[in-house]
Formats: sequence, C-alpha cells, structure tokens
Amino acid sequence: MSNFRNFKMVDYVVYGRGSFNQLNDILAPHRKENQPIVFLVDNFFEDKELVARIPVQGDDKIIFADVTYEPKTTYVDAIADSLKDEFGMVSGIIGIGGGSTMDLAKAVSLMMNNPGSAADYQGWDLVKHPGVYKAGVPTLSGTGAEVSRTTVLTGPTRKLGMNSDFTPFNQIILDPELPAGAPANQRFYTGMDCYIHCIESLTGTYLNEFSKSYGEKALELCRYIFLEKAAWDAECDDKLMMASYAGGMSIAYSQVGVAHAVSYGLSYLLGTKHGIGNCIVMQHLHEYYPQGVDEFKRMVEKGGIEIPKGICEGLSEDQFDTMINVALGMKPLWENALGKDWEKIMTREKLRELYGKL
Amino acid sequence: MSNFRNFKMVDYVVYGRGSFNQLNDILAPHRKENQPIVFLVDNFFEDKELVARIPVQGDDKIIFADVTYEPKTTYVDAIADSLKDEFGMVSGIIGIGGGSTMDLAKAVSLMMNNPGSAADYQGWDLVKHPGVYKAGVPTLSGTGAEVSRTTVLTGPTRKLGMNSDFTPFNQIILDPELPAGAPANQRFYTGMDCYIHCIESLTGTYLNEFSKSYGEKALELCRYIFLEKAAWDAECDDKLMMASYAGGMSIAYSQVGVAHAVSYGLSYLLGTKHGIGNCIVMQHLHEYYPQGVDEFKRMVEKGGIEIPKGICEGLSEDQFDTMINVALGMKPLWENALGKDWEKIMTREKLRELYGKL
Repeated sequence: MSNFRNFKMVDYVVYGRGSFNQLNDILAPHRKENQPIVFLVDNFFEDKELVARIPVQGDDKIIFADVTYEPKTTYVDAIADSLKDEFGMVSGIIGIGGGSTMDLAKAVSLMMNNPGSAADYQGWDLVKHPGVYKAGVPTLSGTGAEVSRTTVLTGPTRKLGMNSDFTPFNQIILDPELPAGAPANQRFYTGMDCYIHCIESLTGTYLNEFSKSYGEKALELCRYIFLEKAAWDAECDDKLMMASYAGGMSIAYSQVGVAHAVSYGLSYLLGTKHGIGNCIVMQHLHEYYPQGVDEFKRMVEKGGIEIPKGICEGLSEDQFDTMINVALGMKPLWENALGKDWEKIMTREKLRELYGKL
Repeated sequence: MSNFRNFKMVDYVVYGRGSFNQLNDILAPHRKENQPIVFLVDNFFEDKELVARIPVQGDDKIIFADVTYEPKTTYVDAIADSLKDEFGMVSGIIGIGGGSTMDLAKAVSLMMNNPGSAADYQGWDLVKHPGVYKAGVPTLSGTGAEVSRTTVLTGPTRKLGMNSDFTPFNQIILDPELPAGAPANQRFYTGMDCYIHCIESLTGTYLNEFSKSYGEKALELCRYIFLEKAAWDAECDDKLMMASYAGGMSIAYSQVGVAHAVSYGLSYLLGTKHGIGNCIVMQHLHEYYPQGVDEFKRMVEKGGIEIPKGICEGLSEDQFDTMINVALGMKPLWENALGKDWEKIMTREKLRELYGKL
C-alpha cells in the first residue's frame, strides 16, 4: 500500500502590492508580554528605506542577517542563544529577505523551543517541539522557501534541512513591491531557481497530479516573464512571486534533480549560493534536460546575464571528491531524475567530468 | 491604504489514489479519550463499499447526511445537539461527500464549540471559538468546499455561510479514486461549478495575480477534461480533483459572479442544488460571459448532458420577487461581475426576465 505525504501548509497567506504595510496588524495578536518580536532582515537592506517600514515596538529587535553564505547551523545556534540570553523568550521571528534569510528565520524559530544545536535536527522529522510564531516575507522570488517544510542549512557534516511539520511558516506576506529593488542578476538567479526546479520536477519520476498542476503553472509564469516579456516591469514581479509560491508548493509530491544535486556540492565546498550554483550547473545538463537547457540558455541570453565560469579551476582531487560525495548523497534527487537505477547512470567519473567543466 | 485578505489555509493536504486508506493513521493523533470520531457521510454511500473502509473504532459514529437539499442551519444544529447529548464532546468531525456534506461537517465542527444556533454565525467573522478537529474528504470534484473558509447554509432568513478563519478544514484527503463511481450527470454539474466559478472570477473586477494563477490553472484543467478528452478516465478524476482545489484557492482574492448570484435565488426558493442551478442559469448569460457561455454549451453537448428546463414555470410573482431579493442581496458578486455601478445594469426587471427563462 502506497503512502502519500501529508503536506503541512503555511497557515496564513496574504498577497498584494503594499501588503507589507499590514505586518503590524498581522503581528499584533501574536505579541506576548515582555517577549519582543525579532525581525531577521537580509543585510542587503541595512541602508534601505524598507527598514523604516518595519513595525518595531518596545523591545523588538532587528537583526541584519549575514547571508553572504547560505546559513550554517552554527549561525542559527548563535542567534537563538543570544536571543535566549537577552530576552529569555521571544514572541516571534520574522524573516524578511531571500531564501537564506527565510530559512534562517524558520530555523531560529525552531531552536527557540528545541534543545541542543540545529545540527541535531538536520534530517526528516527530527524536530520535537513547535517553534515560536514565525512569518516569512520574501524580498526575492524563486526559492519557494516561503512555503517549504525545510530550512536548508550547512552543518558540521552535511548540508541538509530541518525538515518537519513544525518548519513551515505560520504566516507569509507576499508583497510583489518588495523585490522591485533587487539587482537584476540576483533577481535572475533566484528566478531560475524556480525555473530549474520546475524542469527537474516535471521531468522527474516522482510527480503526481498535485505537483504537476503547481509545477506547470510556475513554469508557464517563468516562460512568460523570462522569454515573452520585452522588459522587466511590475507585472513580472507580480507573476514571479506567484511562480515561486507555486514552484514551492509543487515540491509536495515531487523532487528536484540533477542541477540541485550537483549544485549542493558547490555550495558545500565553495559556499556558492544556491541560485547562481544552479545556473552554473544547468547549462551543462543538456544530456538530462535537453529542452529545459535550451530554453534556459535563451533566458540567460535574453536577460543579458553573465554566468560565472571556471569556479572549479585549480581545485584538488580531494576537493572534487568532497563535492562528488555531497552530490551523490542526495539519493532522492537522483532517483527522481534518473530512476531506480541511477547509480549505474551517474558514476563518480561522470560527476568528476561534470564538476571539471564548471 | 488598501487591505488585502489574510487567507487561512487548510492545515494539511494529502493527495493520491488510495490516500483514503491513510485516514486511520491520520486521525490517530487527534483521538481523545472517551470522545469518538464522527463521520458525516453523503447518504449516496449508504449501500456502497466505501462505508466498510471508514476506520470506525470504539464509540465512533457514522451519520449518513441527507443532502437532498443543501444544508440548513436547523440541520447543523440538530446534528451538533444530538452529538452533545450522546457524547458530551467528540474528537473530530469528518465530512465524506460532495460540497454539501463537507460544508455540513465544517459547520457541525464549529457548533460543537460555539453556543446558540448556526444561524447566529451566518456572515463574516462571527464565529468566536475554533471548532473540533475537522477533516474533509471530497467524493465529488468541483465545489472547492474542501479549501474554502465558508460553509454555505440556508438559514431562517438567508442563504449565507459561516465565513471565518475557524472554518477551513484541519485536514483534507484528496483521493481521486473516490469520485469514480459518481453518476455522470452529477459529476458534470459539480465539475461545472468549478468551470463557471473560474469564468466568473477571471472576468471579474476583483482579481489579482494570486487568484488569477489558480483560476487559470483550474480553467485549463476543466477545458482539458470537458473538451479535449475523448472519454472519461482516471486522468479526468485526477485532474478534476486538482481543478476543484485550485478553483477553491482562487476565491482567496476573487469572487464569483452573475451565475452564482442568480443560482442562489433558485436554491433559496426551490432548493435547487448549487451545481445544477449554476448550469441552468449559465446557458442564459451570454450577455455577461459570451466566450464562457459558448464554451460551456460545447461542454454540455460533448458530455451529452440534459439540463433541466422550465423550473420557474408556474411560479407566482411573489416567488419571483423572493428569488430577485435573494440574488440582489449578493452585492459583492454583482460588484465583481459588473463593477461599482452594477445596480444600474442589473435591474429587478432584467432579473425577472432572466428568471422567467429558466
């Protein structure tokens, strides 16, 4: 008898241009006496006007998150421990930023109510207690982190999320005005996270009609935004925010594939950020995703985007081995992409050759 | 400053052929000592094999719901009162059936924890306390009741739902095997609820990108199922279940329109069920939805469906007035369909003429 995943949804969603202005009203019923709200904000916004719009009250605290690299379990622990030292307990953690900031907020929320280190909970359904109230406000569209049940984290021994029913946000605020000021390159890389993820899931072996309907919609929106539109405008921000949400929802019954698995190796060893890592890998995956890679290249060209080259130049064989080990550890991704016999197809030699090209 | 609806989502979703078999495991953590689970089941299943698959334990009770007519507040009260008399409290209410059964289950769950009559809570955000645990298992696809924040109910003075953040299900089980045994006419009428609802919301004035992306997907699935497919098969059941879910989600930031408003008048006076009522009305709405009505008629023809005629024959002018009053009371539907000046367009005379044709 097959068993289907029982997917935990985000509790509340608000979507609309300017909906960020509702944050104060939304947080009000969740405030507890002598427990502040903590806003974890992507440090990109440190000198931006968005900060002045954050509804800070009393002891509330804004922490600018350093997301130069993707979040580490040590960083999660440090933030949670310092908040416990300073306040004892907090009313909520609000993540305002891209996928790294949102994942960091989810992880810190969980670590406020769970003992030990975030590294203890990397895996599936290891988290024991619900976190404190948590809300996500994406300022970049494409990661799907706003609706996911995980928080991708780099730990002492692996890159793996705190994947649990306690992980999804209690609230997300989807305000398409927020990504308008993002640098074009960053916006592209993050948008491609959604596109690549759709290609991987729609061609994968895990798919069912639930995930397919979300994945197809996200793909259709990406194609419109990155191929059909003459120039970037407000409509692109509106639609890319929905593409990201739909792409994230499609993960319920699907998996990513080759690009993500290989990109994880890059992140682990080199700290390459997820969006750009996927793009670096995707262009070399014609063998696995022929139509998707052709279309991806047209999007890159139309967007006038330069994808970094030669990032694996000069690495030692030990370092290549590390990346290969990390990538091959992502078994469900390979099985989704290549089927049950994936180990016969994706050998260490083949992966070594692929990393050598990046 | 505009204010966007903060949409309460269903807590958990499971989708898959045979996922109904997981019901026992899903309910286990929600069972409380000496408080049974109550299964409200569409009486269509009274002699069907599905009943034997319901995971009844101890004092658990199956109640076959009479959904000949859409649920009345008096019926909700009677079920909730009898459960309180018999058990004091219950662990949960599970609705297994079409939109009426699911709405009935949501309403009974709420009335287990709220004093008075369901009629006291017809409206927006009047419900004071969360209901008991509630789960929905659709056996017909198209209503969107599985994800809605309302429970359409006929009360002593109006047809209006208990619309609140406490209303959505804690769990929905989307098993596309369940609708396979539905009568073809019923399946069509309920599917058209979704189709008509998409036409109304996508052409309406309330739409935003969130609702548009869901509405477009639902519409695309309906077109595939009801126009492109040569014959009904398992894929149709798979996709129509997702169309219903997506159509329901699209309501977050949209509204239905003329067909629903006029159909509400029929239900109120004549007890016409929602799906068939919409179909009876839709064929006469070419003036408001020209492309949608043409396409609807092709779906009717392709499905070989007979839509009842002459249901308003022989009614008195008082009765027409009643229907006109109910329909005109649905202000947001008219505003969505026809804009702020809708009262100049949809006069009583025009509505009288329309009802006369049905």
